[in-house]
Amino acid sequence: MSTAGQVIRCKAAVAWESGKPLSIEEVEVAPPQKDEVRIKILFTSLCHTDVYFWDAKGQNPLFPRILGHEAGGIVESVGEGVTDLKPGDHVLPIFTGECKECPHCLSEESNMCDLLRINTDRGEMINDGKSRFSINGKPIYHFLGTSTFSEYTVVHVGQVAKINPEAPLDKVCVLSCGMSTGFGATVNVAKPKKGQSVAIFGLGAVGLAAAEGARVSGASRIIGVDLNPSRFELAKNFGVTEFVNPKDHNKPVQEVIAEMTGGGVDRSVECTGSIQAMMSAFECVHDGWGVAVLVGVPNKDDAFKTHPVNLLNERTLKGTFFGNYKPRTDIPAVVERYMNKELELDKFITHSVPFSEINKAFEYMLAGEGLRCVIRMDA
Amino acid sequence: MSTAGQVIRCKAAVAWESGKPLSIEEVEVAPPQKDEVRIKILFTSLCHTDVYFWDAKGQNPLFPRILGHEAGGIVESVGEGVTDLKPGDHVLPIFTGECKECPHCLSEESNMCDLLRINTDRGEMINDGKSRFSINGKPIYHFLGTSTFSEYTVVHVGQVAKINPEAPLDKVCVLSCGMSTGFGATVNVAKPKKGQSVAIFGLGAVGLAAAEGARVSGASRIIGVDLNPSRFELAKNFGVTEFVNPKDHNKPVQEVIAEMTGGGVDRSVECTGSIQAMMSAFECVHDGWGVAVLVGVPNKDDAFKTHPVNLLNERTLKGTFFGNYKPRTDIPAVVERYMNKELELDKFITHSVPFSEINKAFEYMLAGEGLRCVIRMDA
Repeated sequence: MSTAGQVIRCKAAVAWESGKPLSIEEVEVAPPQKDEVRIKILFTSLCHTDVYFWDAKGQNPLFPRILGHEAGGIVESVGEGVTDLKPGDHVLPIFTGECKECPHCLSEESNMCDLLRINTDRGEMINDGKSRFSINGKPIYHFLGTSTFSEYTVVHVGQVAKINPEAPLDKVCVLSCGMSTGFGATVNVAKPKKGQSVAIFGLGAVGLAAAEGARVSGASRIIGVDLNPSRFELAKNFGVTEFVNPKDHNKPVQEVIAEMTGGGVDRSVECTGSIQAMMSAFECVHDGWGVAVLVGVPNKDDAFKTHPVNLLNERTLKGTFFGNYKPRTDIPAVVERYMNKELELDKFITHSVPFSEINKAFEYMLAGEGLRCVIRMDA
Repeated sequence: MSTAGQVIRCKAAVAWESGKPLSIEEVEVAPPQKDEVRIKILFTSLCHTDVYFWDAKGQNPLFPRILGHEAGGIVESVGEGVTDLKPGDHVLPIFTGECKECPHCLSEESNMCDLLRINTDRGEMINDGKSRFSINGKPIYHFLGTSTFSEYTVVHVGQVAKINPEAPLDKVCVLSCGMSTGFGATVNVAKPKKGQSVAIFGLGAVGLAAAEGARVSGASRIIGVDLNPSRFELAKNFGVTEFVNPKDHNKPVQEVIAEMTGGGVDRSVECTGSIQAMMSAFECVHDGWGVAVLVGVPNKDDAFKTHPVNLLNERTLKGTFFGNYKPRTDIPAVVERYMNKELELDKFITHSVPFSEINKAFEYMLAGEGLRCVIRMDA
């Protein structure tokens, strides 16, 4: 019996206030409106960004809210005007969109869609400025247009990647955000050539996905930089061949790396968001051809500073957002790289919990345990 | 009668001390040693760098010295081990070299040769640490390994580009430095696509060569930025379509350009060396795809500063040196672009003087008159 056009009652994990455990509630999910899709979420994973907006420090708090943005699911129904998705399609909802019409979407080089670019402050659908979630008529805010901590969610069609239905959603769900961000930063932006050296700053999930990109690209040396030496052992499984802890040296880490590599690495990828790490990541690349890529999100008042001669000596500095992937156009092919066993994802998934225990996923992340915890919605 | 292997007596313009007019003297030019070439200079032009090291403010002065580094000439004789040049070849001496063996020369991306990279402090040949120029046995220092303000000069073979003998040396001599630097910055590094917009900061000779690169690339809009409005009229001949004088606006020039272009230009090229212009040139490019290229040489203590979000929004910042051209491998093809009437050079040559009046060339440059003054050695 079709639920299309009907309000669906289902379970969702609601964040009622900042920093308090989520509460599993019965919510009402309105049918998708124009250019929207309603998705049955099967698996969702927890990313730092969820925790950051749950914690809501230094932000305009927006509660009650349904968080979640890394997920895999199946289309339940589609709204008016949606022609390239239909019920039954396997999809990944993505926190940033692709309208396919704005200058960014028409540019080969950008994925920063004018219409659907990430907006962390928005709690409603852009179509009518209203929420599709409610409890007893009281609206619950959306998060990143995805709100995947719910058995059903409504997402703008521009934020939905249709993927190979054979792909295991409990694995490829992590491609919705962090893994694609790190992997794409390396393969799409830093673009190391076979045999080149790559430094990765920050060996969390995104940094290790960047390392995975370097491994897949055939890098000869992958140098991991982290202040936490406990990450080094794990990182070996991700192709990282050498480790540098800036705390172990009494000179700047860029000088340590220059000495290790005869002048600097060929490529670097910065995944911490620390402004000091950003400047080191830039200055540790070789003159003549080095490329440094910034991924980590800095603090509001940070300033990136360097001597311009570091640039004039033919270094390149670039930033990236979501690994430069266009969500609808490019993510299906990343899923295929996993299906072809080129890209390894399973090793990123260190924990799994049933939906009823979603708060455990937050505990693991706050304790710095593991990389990704997948939440099983049907359990 | 061959002069090979003999000391040649000829005229050279000697800078005896900083800031004083050059003096035409009879000098002795020793034969080329291993890996060296002796060149009869036919035409040389004056570049700001000559004036900078003649003025020698804030430097370790190195005098007496024979300046000059933009030139065209004919090989007179070659030293031991030189196999790819022979007497009679038409050549451009270049201030930076290409040994063809170091990691930079072997890299497709770099032109910053480890052996022969520009060295402004060196006054002797690298082979034996001695000068090939003397007056009554007293050595005269070289400049940039080229010292083209002399009827004959000795240059390391790695700093000599062999060019089409049909090319008029009185025109293509300007490709030895400034014109290639600006043109290459655009076509090799900024790489605007047909129809894109380009901002050029600084409308001196190098900036106008960058504009010429944008014109040749098919840029739809070329926005010239300069504090001196008298340059705008001349710049129209170089394809510049619009002008912005930062002094005319009470907001940062990057905001003015963003408003003119719906968010920013596609590419920018900075040719002034002012640190403020560098930061503006970076911040005036469009998010998602904008590329800013730094050409101008900054002061020693300058710091480039920007908010890292400007990078994370998918802007690229690169520096370049000599337009990323490898002197021996690439410059002959730039000469061909002139021969094919694709690249226009004649419009850069605004003055011409006989060698005996070389000090007039300095006067023109100090007065900011014109772009390039070609010095005719045979006159």
